[in-house]
Amino acid sequence: MGTKIILDCDPGHDDAIAMLLAHGNPDIELLAVTTVVGNQTLPKVTRNALAVAEIAGITGVPFAAGATRPLVRTIENAPDIHGDSGMDGPVLPEPTLELDHRHAVDLIIDTIMANEPKTVTLVPTGGLTNIALAVRKEPRIAERVKEVVLMGGGYHTGNWSAVAEFNIKIDPEAAHIVFTESWPVVMVGLDLTHQALATPAVVERIAAVDTAPARFVLELLEFFGATYKQSQGFDSPPVHDPCAVAYVIDPTIVRTVKVPIDIELTGTLTLGMTVADFRAPAPDDCTTWAATELDHERFWALVVDALERIGEVAA
Amino acid sequence: MGTKIILDCDPGHDDAIAMLLAHGNPDIELLAVTTVVGNQTLPKVTRNALAVAEIAGITGVPFAAGATRPLVRTIENAPDIHGDSGMDGPVLPEPTLELDHRHAVDLIIDTIMANEPKTVTLVPTGGLTNIALAVRKEPRIAERVKEVVLMGGGYHTGNWSAVAEFNIKIDPEAAHIVFTESWPVVMVGLDLTHQALATPAVVERIAAVDTAPARFVLELLEFFGATYKQSQGFDSPPVHDPCAVAYVIDPTIVRTVKVPIDIELTGTLTLGMTVADFRAPAPDDCTTWAATELDHERFWALVVDALERIGEVAA
Amino acid sequence: MGTKIILDCDPGHDDAIAMLLAHGNPDIELLAVTTVVGNQTLPKVTRNALAVAEIAGITGVPFAAGATRPLVRTIENAPDIHGDSGMDGPVLPEPTLELDHRHAVDLIIDTIMANEPKTVTLVPTGGLTNIALAVRKEPRIAERVKEVVLMGGGYHTGNWSAVAEFNIKIDPEAAHIVFTESWPVVMVGLDLTHQALATPAVVERIAAVDTAPARFVLELLEFFGATYKQSQGFDSPPVHDPCAVAYVIDPTIVRTVKVPIDIELTGTLTLGMTVADFRAPAPDDCTTWAATELDHERFWALVVDALERIGEVAA
Amino acid sequence: MGTKIILDCDPGHDDAIAMLLAHGNPDIELLAVTTVVGNQTLPKVTRNALAVAEIAGITGVPFAAGATRPLVRTIENAPDIHGDSGMDGPVLPEPTLELDHRHAVDLIIDTIMANEPKTVTLVPTGGLTNIALAVRKEPRIAERVKEVVLMGGGYHTGNWSAVAEFNIKIDPEAAHIVFTESWPVVMVGLDLTHQALATPAVVERIAAVDTAPARFVLELLEFFGATYKQSQGFDSPPVHDPCAVAYVIDPTIVRTVKVPIDIELTGTLTLGMTVADFRAPAPDDCTTWAATELDHERFWALVVDALERIGEVAA
Repeated sequence: MGTKIILDCDPGHDDAIAMLLAHGNPDIELLAVTTVVGNQTLPKVTRNALAVAEIAGITGVPFAAGATRPLVRTIENAPDIHGDSGMDGPVLPEPTLELDHRHAVDLIIDTIMANEPKTVTLVPTGGLTNIALAVRKEPRIAERVKEVVLMGGGYHTGNWSAVAEFNIKIDPEAAHIVFTESWPVVMVGLDLTHQALATPAVVERIAAVDTAPARFVLELLEFFGATYKQSQGFDSPPVHDPCAVAYVIDPTIVRTVKVPIDIELTGTLTLGMTVADFRAPAPDDCTTWAATELDHERFWALVVDALERIGEVAA
Repeated sequence: MGTKIILDCDPGHDDAIAMLLAHGNPDIELLAVTTVVGNQTLPKVTRNALAVAEIAGITGVPFAAGATRPLVRTIENAPDIHGDSGMDGPVLPEPTLELDHRHAVDLIIDTIMANEPKTVTLVPTGGLTNIALAVRKEPRIAERVKEVVLMGGGYHTGNWSAVAEFNIKIDPEAAHIVFTESWPVVMVGLDLTHQALATPAVVERIAAVDTAPARFVLELLEFFGATYKQSQGFDSPPVHDPCAVAYVIDPTIVRTVKVPIDIELTGTLTLGMTVADFRAPAPDDCTTWAATELDHERFWALVVDALERIGEVAA
Repeated sequence: MGTKIILDCDPGHDDAIAMLLAHGNPDIELLAVTTVVGNQTLPKVTRNALAVAEIAGITGVPFAAGATRPLVRTIENAPDIHGDSGMDGPVLPEPTLELDHRHAVDLIIDTIMANEPKTVTLVPTGGLTNIALAVRKEPRIAERVKEVVLMGGGYHTGNWSAVAEFNIKIDPEAAHIVFTESWPVVMVGLDLTHQALATPAVVERIAAVDTAPARFVLELLEFFGATYKQSQGFDSPPVHDPCAVAYVIDPTIVRTVKVPIDIELTGTLTLGMTVADFRAPAPDDCTTWAATELDHERFWALVVDALERIGEVAA
Repeated sequence: MGTKIILDCDPGHDDAIAMLLAHGNPDIELLAVTTVVGNQTLPKVTRNALAVAEIAGITGVPFAAGATRPLVRTIENAPDIHGDSGMDGPVLPEPTLELDHRHAVDLIIDTIMANEPKTVTLVPTGGLTNIALAVRKEPRIAERVKEVVLMGGGYHTGNWSAVAEFNIKIDPEAAHIVFTESWPVVMVGLDLTHQALATPAVVERIAAVDTAPARFVLELLEFFGATYKQSQGFDSPPVHDPCAVAYVIDPTIVRTVKVPIDIELTGTLTLGMTVADFRAPAPDDCTTWAATELDHERFWALVVDALERIGEVAA
């Protein structure tokens, strides 16, 4: 079996593609999917997650809803990027999958504690509220997970302020909790994900798969590409979240550097910045890594491969 | 039956007396006792809580342990006031009561949701980490509790900095969460509790009860009095936490004023201050009250009465 | 001769009365008057200061204009209290006095350095921008002035936020500079000045003086009383600035306590608060005092006496 | 004549080279040199500035001493880089030049006001205390100077914290004042100056000049190179301050980009960061530029040329 992961997400166009990659790739064992307020409200992103499960034919994986709001700050969503539903563009099927009765925080804790130590990787692709609540409720998971590979932040790039990224800035206290815990944290931030552009050539390769899930991805990219063009001037949209899954599948696709990273919690201009200290080699007790360079070709090959493996999903 | 309360505490000398008051008073129905890091580490304050149950003969009430650390900040304890055990002074019995298997956060949520709406009062007498985690995990409790009557803060008085009080300052983000939720919050702060002095006359009245629990209280006051004299120059120690319980028993013992209160989260000199705005009458949607004046005589009469009702506890 | 003072002000209704008190009282030698942005823009408060000189017959005292804006923050004025002119109410005469050619900062420095050490008292009754600039430009004045007796701040009272006062909050960095320099600072804050109410009895006594300057004061109090009633609900207006002058004339009129005070520069709710630490007796090296109690009777007697001494001023 | 500049500096090894470049280059007219606390205390850097004047044969240029400490923060110096004298390494001559009797702030103001509008460029290469005090004392200089070309900051690089540079971080409030005034500001920051390495080839070219001033530069580079190697791991030292002068001489040597920049004043991890917002093209009213790319060859050619023009200085 592959690497066991819990995907904690707020679909979200790129979250959906991350879910498809995690489901379709044979080196990933998807233990659970949990949702968190972020790109849209919790009910919306939860519904979107279940719809993606339907489209991708994900079964036997528990889905649970988590935090309805950030720890300390008021709610910020991103309708300019993801639309009113949080995943505008495709027509979504009615979900048939039922949510796990547990809170996401408990599903995360239970799943980690039920597996062997150092076997479960957390892959958060939204705000870090669920993960922070989980480790504060059950501190033992900090030693028990293998690592946290998250999409968020950026050492030299911001999108929700000059120097802060959306997933971190909407719940900076949660991010601080996650980055300062004892587990290893790999920050797959904007520096990396702005390299994961869905160029016309990429779109063409996905189109060639020509299945319902692949067409769903094309519709996602079409909407997402338009909003990214409109709001941030990108010619091709950066597809953030699957980069974190790709790193878990094959760390050689994403170059990383060990560097101390912490979250700015009080700055007037810098709130939510992932402050990385590159001035000297990281000390031995450093537990944080920043992703720096993407192998664009092999990354998209993984995505296409996952879509091909998923194939047509029987209704 | 009396008012249903959940006591969330970090015994702590005055927490112990609060527990005795809640247990011995006939107008209080103690639904649960939960513990939280604060005066000492979680294992120590939890052990202390169970020891007090033993001394007071509390049975049939679930006890559960909660947060081992504040939400965002690092741990601060108060050994200068409460000693190395968190309740130095008396020799403590070995607890026989077993902890509930649930996390305090879940015991709090379950208890609130299992009771009728607006019937359960939360009485936190330590840092607000458990309460904050509970309302973030299950937001519906904000509408469901009757009120939160907490010992902490102070509008014109500080003890952990010039303007901040220990319970609030050790977890200001948790306090901010509690003070800004939709439930009513009564802040029984230092302005009030510095009136609850265990004067020699008070000590004499407690001594006259002459039971094992009363002698336990005397030993608590002796130690607590000495550390308060030493560290803050008090001639008689202020006995904070029972004031919150007294307010629940009889709100006429503690005068309060409706006033907007929020927690300072970024101040260099004022971190954790409970900032109350007395400049104008509180607006209609204000949900916070500050305790201002204590009826010293009736307060201590309540404590003595509770000790008399508890009587000798059969081993 | 009396105590030498430099009055640094932003007239301002109560600044005007402070100026009259300083001019009319025989125990004060007014060395200079400097103006600073605050209640209104610099041109307005400077014009007002010169108009007061005209009304009071002040001659032979250099007046100089200072800072047009706070050190770091953007300009905040107080038209709700002082009107559009900064001294609305009375009809003001055209000033005939000409401004000193020097910047207020240089007039302050030159005056201090030209007098014997420890003989000049600074009396700022506006924002502290000029004083801060002066001591940063010429650090030797910190050792050379006798003391700084300022109107501003408040240890338990705010008027420009829940816990901050106008003069401090409009330039908190300047206030920090002044409060942390080596000179003695007496903070005559809102705790004190809210006791200096111009009650009907006070107004009657001033009316009885029945001179042009006294009638000017009555007009000031009429306008000031109306805006204070409207904006802050006072029945009689607190007349802040003369309290600082009164303290210089006779320190027994204003009770003070030695207490460490510093300015909060980063608080979200507490920016500009004068944080006083009353937890323990002030250490020996403490250089700050807070005014706590006013002798209302003797204070107003001083004001009335000054008006009587000024008498009718020949045009 | 060349571009008129006022050099405001804290020599400092690289400040000394900046002074030599400004003096030796025919396209610069050096109107004044002012000193400010920074690399070392004000008396030390002032003495160093006068010693450099001696070495370079600078005459007829007023030198004045300025601020002894930052506006708000306590003093921080950099002995690890510049040694105990602030310019360790060479044996310095006794200065014969006398300081102007004016404060640096007044010399700056007077010089700007005495020259035609938009003809004087300010070149600060230390903390920005003097410049901030000058524009607060005489606001009209903001419209009157041509531009401010300063060495300090860095949009992606820090040296005094993970993300802040020394000159900005030692007086962030002053930097905020300078960056938010209406004058054009060109930030020649670490991103640029870390390209200005004094490589062995550079050292060789300077050695070939073979004059007393050139040998003085070699001694500076030797010491500076050793401390930079020791403290920050550089193989060749970055020679910051002359880059600002080089930009004034020939802006084509330093590529810049127009980008909004402001200073973080409250961040816990980011205090003093020069936050540049590269997310979108700079708005029309943007007045700040960041230096991005250095023409290394032409930069050092300028320095060598200046040394050759200075030649041997008669004692």
